Amino acid sequence: MTRLYDRVAVIGLGLIASSLIHAMRRADLAGTITGYDASALHMAQAREDGLCDMLADSAAAAVQDADLVMLCVPVGAMGGVAEEIGPHLRPGATVSDVGSVKRSVIDAVAPHLPPDVTFIPGHPMAGTEYSGPRAGFAELFDGRWCLLLPPEGCDPQALRQLRALWTGMGATVEEMEPDHHDLVCAVISHAPHLIAYTMVGVADDLRRVTDQEVIKFSAAGFRDFTRIAASDPTMWRDVFLNNKDATLEILGRFTEELFALQRAIRTGDGDMLHDYFTRTRAIRKGIIEAGQDTAAPDFGRAKTRPGE
Amino acid sequence: MTRLYDRVAVIGLGLIASSLIHAMRRADLAGTITGYDASALHMAQAREDGLCDMLADSAAAAVQDADLVMLCVPVGAMGGVAEEIGPHLRPGATVSDVGSVKRSVIDAVAPHLPPDVTFIPGHPMAGTEYSGPRAGFAELFDGRWCLLLPPEGCDPQALRQLRALWTGMGATVEEMEPDHHDLVCAVISHAPHLIAYTMVGVADDLRRVTDQEVIKFSAAGFRDFTRIAASDPTMWRDVFLNNKDATLEILGRFTEELFALQRAIRTGDGDMLHDYFTRTRAIRKGIIEAGQDTAAPDFGRAKTRPGE
Repeated sequence: MTRLYDRVAVIGLGLIASSLIHAMRRADLAGTITGYDASALHMAQAREDGLCDMLADSAAAAVQDADLVMLCVPVGAMGGVAEEIGPHLRPGATVSDVGSVKRSVIDAVAPHLPPDVTFIPGHPMAGTEYSGPRAGFAELFDGRWCLLLPPEGCDPQALRQLRALWTGMGATVEEMEPDHHDLVCAVISHAPHLIAYTMVGVADDLRRVTDQEVIKFSAAGFRDFTRIAASDPTMWRDVFLNNKDATLEILGRFTEELFALQRAIRTGDGDMLHDYFTRTRAIRKGIIEAGQDTAAPDFGRAKTRPGE
Repeated sequence: MTRLYDRVAVIGLGLIASSLIHAMRRADLAGTITGYDASALHMAQAREDGLCDMLADSAAAAVQDADLVMLCVPVGAMGGVAEEIGPHLRPGATVSDVGSVKRSVIDAVAPHLPPDVTFIPGHPMAGTEYSGPRAGFAELFDGRWCLLLPPEGCDPQALRQLRALWTGMGATVEEMEPDHHDLVCAVISHAPHLIAYTMVGVADDLRRVTDQEVIKFSAAGFRDFTRIAASDPTMWRDVFLNNKDATLEILGRFTEELFALQRAIRTGDGDMLHDYFTRTRAIRKGIIEAGQDTAAPDFGRAKTRPGE
């Protein structure tokens, strides 16, 4: 693989950033990688692990000579970082990000960037329930989608290069329009996360009543929710606050549907329930056929032991 | 392992039943295993695979000489099967079941059993999203819980023997009272399943709008819900109809909590969201520490490819 960028700056050194760095290194896609994170703990861990070639004292210092700047901070922090780095960006540089919401990030970031810089928002559809600089791994993007949202009139050469970077890191790139992106993500990611958080919160309340049984017997279904409800709290707070309208719309649809199913249970409408559950079973099949999940029973989970 | 029962009858030959049979054979816990299923397809598959030592033409014929009868049919079918087999049970036999709801099964089954038979309801907390006689495997119960619900004055020898059977199949046995069981299962299993079914149903509706994107990008969170929403429709219809009160109560709690989080999103109460998400993250940790789920990121899923 040819080097695509001589100098890359990565701002924010969490799960996605550290995976980016490992994946760029795996395919030798970047020359020097300079990192910065506002958290002293993240900086200390990155230093100890030799995560980056260099660590800068500030976001502004990190981007100074960079050909590519990747913003990997929580969505709510993007605007502040853009404001800080704007005056220090190199002419001709490309700025991209990995935020899970796009309209609000574009609105927050774009005004701070000088006209001689190309801004191409991005969103790799990948992650785990872990966070921080030690959670990353080179394979995170393998076989996953990365959405890019180039603005009208985006420099084609800069776009080609960024596409090549993501492809080189194992992802498949697709382009999308910001508002559509935010709606799609509300359906497939943001609403499911909020619902998982809610279910886990309810069970936690009841745990006090049921004497640890919620944890003990969680393999009966509940534990599936706890994985995504273990995702980074700051990241997800910002996602919901920045994709408010689409998320609330989908949650409204969800509540309507939940009420219809509750009514079917209450009135004993077994046919309605059976038809509904047959339809949802077919969707799982579609996802497996599309290569988006494993067909192995129970996600092919490693065997676990009961906690006596 | 000593043989615990000379003749076992298994009524219903789905995922749990076929796993039972494989697990009993693995440790040589049973002599002859006779099976019966009302589905002609299941019977044909069981015959072709040699799943049982013998297949009977009816539930009544299957139980005739059995020391142990395991009822492995959907919860809503338990009463009918009990009525049919009642007059044909051997004096001294033990009858047990694997239903996910206990109060309604006890009410439906117990009246049909003669007094010289011991009824010990059971519920192995194990399963996958697949169903039918070919979905079973000997390891399903390894490291999982099996709840037994012996009635007052239950024959201690019969109970010891059934406990030994489950232990021999790899499970850890715990005793519980039926109403408490149904409430615990509503929290950790029934409500989460209904919520997953609902979320997948909503996304399916929207899929028509978003042109397959729901499936394509499902790895962003949604796919976690689709696994449990792919579970057997008949089984789950019966679970909800037979654990109506507890399930509706938990769903009511869930809706309250969801509304509180929606309000926090709408009003921009980031602190409330952050605190909530921090609390739910701790629960995941508890589950992993209790050995009830894998700590591997993303459930240690096998790598999947994007469906181009």
